[in-house]
Amino acid sequence: MSNHLAPLEPKADKAAVRRHNLSLVLRAVHDEGETTRAAVAARSGLTRAAVSSLVEQLLDSGFLTESGKTFSGQAGRPGTVLKVARTGWAGVGVEINVDYVTVCVVDLSGADRVRLTEHVDNRGAPPAEVLDRAARITAQALESASARELHPAGVHLALPGLVSDGTVRQAPNLGWNEVPAETLLARALSGARRSGARRPAAQGTTADHARPLTVTSGNEADAAALAELWFGGLTDAAGRPLRSFLHLTGEIGIGGALVVDGRLLRGAHGFAGEIGHVVVDEDGPECRCGARGCLEQYAGQAALLRAAGLAEDAGQPGVAELERRALAGDEAAVAAIEGAGRTLGLVLSGAANLFDPDAIVLGGTYRPLMRWLAPPITERLERRVVSGLWSADSGRLRASSSAGDAARGSAALVARDVLADPLTYADRAGA
Amino acid sequence: MSNHLAPLEPKADKAAVRRHNLSLVLRAVHDEGETTRAAVAARSGLTRAAVSSLVEQLLDSGFLTESGKTFSGQAGRPGTVLKVARTGWAGVGVEINVDYVTVCVVDLSGADRVRLTEHVDNRGAPPAEVLDRAARITAQALESASARELHPAGVHLALPGLVSDGTVRQAPNLGWNEVPAETLLARALSGARRSGARRPAAQGTTADHARPLTVTSGNEADAAALAELWFGGLTDAAGRPLRSFLHLTGEIGIGGALVVDGRLLRGAHGFAGEIGHVVVDEDGPECRCGARGCLEQYAGQAALLRAAGLAEDAGQPGVAELERRALAGDEAAVAAIEGAGRTLGLVLSGAANLFDPDAIVLGGTYRPLMRWLAPPITERLERRVVSGLWSADSGRLRASSSAGDAARGSAALVARDVLADPLTYADRAGA
Repeated sequence: MSNHLAPLEPKADKAAVRRHNLSLVLRAVHDEGETTRAAVAARSGLTRAAVSSLVEQLLDSGFLTESGKTFSGQAGRPGTVLKVARTGWAGVGVEINVDYVTVCVVDLSGADRVRLTEHVDNRGAPPAEVLDRAARITAQALESASARELHPAGVHLALPGLVSDGTVRQAPNLGWNEVPAETLLARALSGARRSGARRPAAQGTTADHARPLTVTSGNEADAAALAELWFGGLTDAAGRPLRSFLHLTGEIGIGGALVVDGRLLRGAHGFAGEIGHVVVDEDGPECRCGARGCLEQYAGQAALLRAAGLAEDAGQPGVAELERRALAGDEAAVAAIEGAGRTLGLVLSGAANLFDPDAIVLGGTYRPLMRWLAPPITERLERRVVSGLWSADSGRLRASSSAGDAARGSAALVARDVLADPLTYADRAGA
Repeated sequence: MSNHLAPLEPKADKAAVRRHNLSLVLRAVHDEGETTRAAVAARSGLTRAAVSSLVEQLLDSGFLTESGKTFSGQAGRPGTVLKVARTGWAGVGVEINVDYVTVCVVDLSGADRVRLTEHVDNRGAPPAEVLDRAARITAQALESASARELHPAGVHLALPGLVSDGTVRQAPNLGWNEVPAETLLARALSGARRSGARRPAAQGTTADHARPLTVTSGNEADAAALAELWFGGLTDAAGRPLRSFLHLTGEIGIGGALVVDGRLLRGAHGFAGEIGHVVVDEDGPECRCGARGCLEQYAGQAALLRAAGLAEDAGQPGVAELERRALAGDEAAVAAIEGAGRTLGLVLSGAANLFDPDAIVLGGTYRPLMRWLAPPITERLERRVVSGLWSADSGRLRASSSAGDAARGSAALVARDVLADPLTYADRAGA
């Protein structure tokens, strides 16, 4: 209960109240997409006068734009339409995965404005080399962003492993151990941006290059789950936004993350969601984590491809080939996917018994294979989850949308930091 | 982010502020056990004058008591010692389990003041009959409480099954399905208290009998985990109170609950924590839930006793006999416990990979058997949890304390409702 031990005083600090309410108004506009001052007042519980003053400041600082007159749906005078600005502060997400690097820049509305992907096998490459490459791609993305008048508020790096305090503790599929990824990327990025600046640059980009960027980091499955939450548009049985779900990303590894009431369950040390290493058979094949018989060894991308008679390191093209063969009725391909589905179904039914999520969302490799994966998974969820809520017609097993990925989720994390306290960023821009 | 969309206004409602701060002060005293006005002010951030006025009202309403002078540890004048009152409002917990019913009454400090247990086989008995018996025991406990000047603020009923909206959806080990337990208990309790009142009663109990009691309900594993959180006194590696852990109660079934940052993870429908039905072997023995090969079939009380050559329905005396035999070096007994430990270790390593808790706490049947259970469990946690935080010397696998059980946790839930809003209860007492 001690987390509720904040005293309420009738008279709160006025500057702190204004700071809080600036964010309140900015987020209200963000969440609605397009809105009016009157609607913001109705939604936030602030007075019309307070909203007008706060909106004025947000327009002046470039966080909001307004355009044309509109007739609001509610009673009252017509208002001008408010939107979050498409220029100014931006979030930058960098996803380093086993066989690709993706950089994504979003504006404050969360829209995907710049995206660069490089397919490359990062397994076994020295971490510093991988991070140098990521920095180079990020510097290119930032040049494109700058040309669109978007300026980075920070960079979030997503990695397929256990990340804490800026360090990759372990990423079995990359072969990384205790890599200080935040520091390495920040340093590499600083160098890459300086060399980029020596080339003829668009007007007004110099200030951007001079400003050191804050780099944060986390698990890519977490970032992918947040992208699904924020951009996936999934709804529950009652048509409300889906806010409690288990999210799996099939890649070389299997990333898992649990969203509870619209927030990530990070665990006591930030390491929650490692569903790829849940045991299927204690005496099964050895896993890169050092244990035997992990789910990854039965339903990870390599296991899937191998079971279908394809090269286990064939990556995304291999998965596309697997799908093509299954569509053509190739029995080995169908059997491989269904076998992975049976094992997934067992582990997911256990996870559903433990977590009681509203839905399970499968992304990455699993997305194009859902028509074959879903029946054996659903059969086990229906039979094994004691709540009885997981019948085949419950619609609780879903394919992820294609709207979000770990790179966009990471970029949006940064953008949301700006929305949470615009005043800090307004001050920084003025400095 | 919409959960943060509460506007801050410089001028908050004064009555609401006082209501909030009354709870703040009462909880500060509760959490400290014994304290002074000065210490409450320091802890809460309220002024000394505000605290004095709030304390006065809480003393007048009977929530707090004060006694003798003390010299506070901090600078300043000596203050009188404040404590939460040991009379007045009380919480009542009723635990119905497979082979017993326990009723517990706690005062506002959470102290266990009245406790009645009846050992009885509830399997297969009609739910109404079981609830009638529970009501009779509760009425007896309330008479004892009344003699101690403790008056029930409400009753919380804990059951070994899936409970939502006051109804037991499914309790496989009781054989209950869709039982409206709250309504049935409230009705039976009303009858049992009336018949109790016909006997010569202690002074001042008539008002209690006339007042209908609010009955709430939930899962017994959840209540047991809360009892461990509130009364277990467990600490993390740094010596701070343990606030994120997975709690298992071995009974006929295996109850599970996850505490995250001092709060229960209830799941999207309130059904989280069903670890007893996580699959061990899809083709294993049939479980009462309808599926095959659930953990319960390998590590539940019946399976343990059976594996040791004891009668599987021997209950607590059977577990005591199992412990006695294992202590005497009986190989079948030791092998049975270690076998259960291996299976528990596999399922718990999966749960630790998913949740990343700070610790795993084993209670109920498992408590007296820990010396044999711990080695095979720890071995698997060490080998299989990818975070690498679960080595044998990490101390993360714990036996539960004996301080709390589901009945006390349930009673404390009710008492904490009073602490959260004392004014509501002060008004009710005056009505």
